[in-house]
Amino acid sequence: MNNFTFYAPARIVFGKGQEDRIGELLKPYAKKILLHTGGGSVKKSGLYDRVTASLEKSGIEYVALSGVRPNPRLSLVHEGIELCKREGVELILAVGGGSVIDSAKAIAMGVYYDGDIWEVYETGKAIEKALPVATILTIPAAGSESSGDTVITNEEKQLKYGYGSDHLRPVLSVMDPELFFTLPESQLANGVADMMSHVFERYFTNTKNTDLTDGLCETVLRTLMKNAPKAKANMQDYDAWAELGFAGTVAHNGLVGMGRVQDWGCHNMEHELSAIYDVAHGAGLAVLTPGWMEYVYRDNIGMFVQFAVNVMGVRGSYRDEDAIVMEGIARLRKFFREMGLPGSLSELGIGEDRLEEMAKKCTGAAFGEEHPVGGLKKLYWQDVLAIYNLVK
Amino acid sequence: MNNFTFYAPARIVFGKGQEDRIGELLKPYAKKILLHTGGGSVKKSGLYDRVTASLEKSGIEYVALSGVRPNPRLSLVHEGIELCKREGVELILAVGGGSVIDSAKAIAMGVYYDGDIWEVYETGKAIEKALPVATILTIPAAGSESSGDTVITNEEKQLKYGYGSDHLRPVLSVMDPELFFTLPESQLANGVADMMSHVFERYFTNTKNTDLTDGLCETVLRTLMKNAPKAKANMQDYDAWAELGFAGTVAHNGLVGMGRVQDWGCHNMEHELSAIYDVAHGAGLAVLTPGWMEYVYRDNIGMFVQFAVNVMGVRGSYRDEDAIVMEGIARLRKFFREMGLPGSLSELGIGEDRLEEMAKKCTGAAFGEEHPVGGLKKLYWQDVLAIYNLVK
Repeated sequence: MNNFTFYAPARIVFGKGQEDRIGELLKPYAKKILLHTGGGSVKKSGLYDRVTASLEKSGIEYVALSGVRPNPRLSLVHEGIELCKREGVELILAVGGGSVIDSAKAIAMGVYYDGDIWEVYETGKAIEKALPVATILTIPAAGSESSGDTVITNEEKQLKYGYGSDHLRPVLSVMDPELFFTLPESQLANGVADMMSHVFERYFTNTKNTDLTDGLCETVLRTLMKNAPKAKANMQDYDAWAELGFAGTVAHNGLVGMGRVQDWGCHNMEHELSAIYDVAHGAGLAVLTPGWMEYVYRDNIGMFVQFAVNVMGVRGSYRDEDAIVMEGIARLRKFFREMGLPGSLSELGIGEDRLEEMAKKCTGAAFGEEHPVGGLKKLYWQDVLAIYNLVK
Repeated sequence: MNNFTFYAPARIVFGKGQEDRIGELLKPYAKKILLHTGGGSVKKSGLYDRVTASLEKSGIEYVALSGVRPNPRLSLVHEGIELCKREGVELILAVGGGSVIDSAKAIAMGVYYDGDIWEVYETGKAIEKALPVATILTIPAAGSESSGDTVITNEEKQLKYGYGSDHLRPVLSVMDPELFFTLPESQLANGVADMMSHVFERYFTNTKNTDLTDGLCETVLRTLMKNAPKAKANMQDYDAWAELGFAGTVAHNGLVGMGRVQDWGCHNMEHELSAIYDVAHGAGLAVLTPGWMEYVYRDNIGMFVQFAVNVMGVRGSYRDEDAIVMEGIARLRKFFREMGLPGSLSELGIGEDRLEEMAKKCTGAAFGEEHPVGGLKKLYWQDVLAIYNLVK
């Protein structure tokens, strides 16, 4: 186990109807907030009105900024920063999924940043300060409700970059599984793929002596794979959504990756797809992950046998480790397919013409200085291209 | 899954040598602190000098209060409160195990409490405020480094009561497995029994639909049972201690019990033993827990079959559930015995003469108003006495 710092300060307020308490919950933090939302679904569902009613009841003033889209855009972030400065906002409440929360985090640090906030995404330099962020989660997927991470798309440059800081960890997140009942099935599937990937990126490691976190990762993965089909069969299944929602937070609050060298190769490769083709992040991950496994597993076959046995339930002769691993990967592909996720880049509408460009952007080779991605196996642009080709 | 709030804000700074950074780590929190310690072992080991050197290097002033004993005493707490008030202390740094940390928490809230702080232990009433507490953990056991819980013994009244508040959750805890190398074997054994009990108290529940937290509990238990014998065989086994230390924090920061009705019967029954006989908490738990299991398992046999199979690795015919459960309990007893823990009250030096008195104190029957203990099965004083008799 490597040295680590674990810090997950978000207060998770979980369960039916908790969003109606948002005013009372935020009162210790702020008198005036930015209410940040996505498209029209929170208004259609009545959630927006319930939130504003609760804020008003508690005497919390708000200014509103809606319009966050999937793969949240830098231009709206700029607008939010100006609005917060002008209005003297003290906290940003994101009501939505990962995109809305990520946009809120970008605004939260932009308010105190001297310059264009895109610079921190591009350079990774440390920020000093950010407005507090709170969330009401409407899609379990990104884990952004407890993480310090944010991913923003610079639409002009066709770049999608992530950034992380403890200053961006939400102070409070409401999670009511009933808010997930009206999601389209595709968002369930994409969300599950994303949550599983958050665990995979931490699970697949060359670090030794990781009993506790191995087991935590495996439990989260088994929980997701057990409950996702239940929610798909009945989108009003409270208990299934409760497991998915809580598992999504545990998957990405940092815990299950502590003391491990993490991977993040698939996330890096997927960001290139989303930046250019605007595909759903989870769908991209579902396509890439099995291909990545096939490409890298021989570098640490024990880790992948463990995955196949402990997570995918493969039994058989452990004398043929390759067969065990391949069966584990086959079962993962089957699970993704049964959830309705795509199995290839072509199913995502991605042709072969820009694969090399994306591979070179992914590792930085396109910009003159290559930084291979991936912790378990270092992937250079040729490796990334090979993986894209494996799943084309 | 029931509604819940999860809040575990402690920053866990984990790994070799991290205690030498304590000054730098505390600088954002305080200019003057109380350095709170137990007996002489932190001075003998050189840890105390390293901590004060780090504080001095960072320009943090400190006043010292040592002398916390196992089952920490109210009288020292009173002394600490006076000292903090007089010296204008801004944070309490506990360097030690659970007893030192619990004492620090009592002082931290006592500084702001108008009256004798023992009142909050007796009445359970909510506190408004406490000084921040930080810790350098020297014994993995109580989980107090991340929990909001504190247990104090009122030596005059021979009472040992617990209290909990989010205001008491440490802001920062340093955990260096190397600090555990010099512990006596008995403290390893007691600590493991305590950590396992923190999970048991949350695991054994009648709440349904608890996939994620079931799995988290089982993982923590398996990790503890795998690594404790390794540390016993080699008290310098860094990796084993790392697993035990981190598992101890996860066992008691709240996570594994979220959304479940918890039990806490064994802890309540054990506090009576410690209050009168001053036995080690973990040793008392190791004696009581298997007896408690035998007494209650038929009230939720499925839960105990799950324990036997998923945690204790029992295989066989599930047609005879009682046999599966009894084999699980037998294996738990065997594990405790192999760790060198006692198997009966008589081995703890506890005779039969005060069992009824303790049973009646445990449920409050002795004080005129009975509140049965235990979430899985409500235990009245006759039940508690029956369990004491089962393990006498």
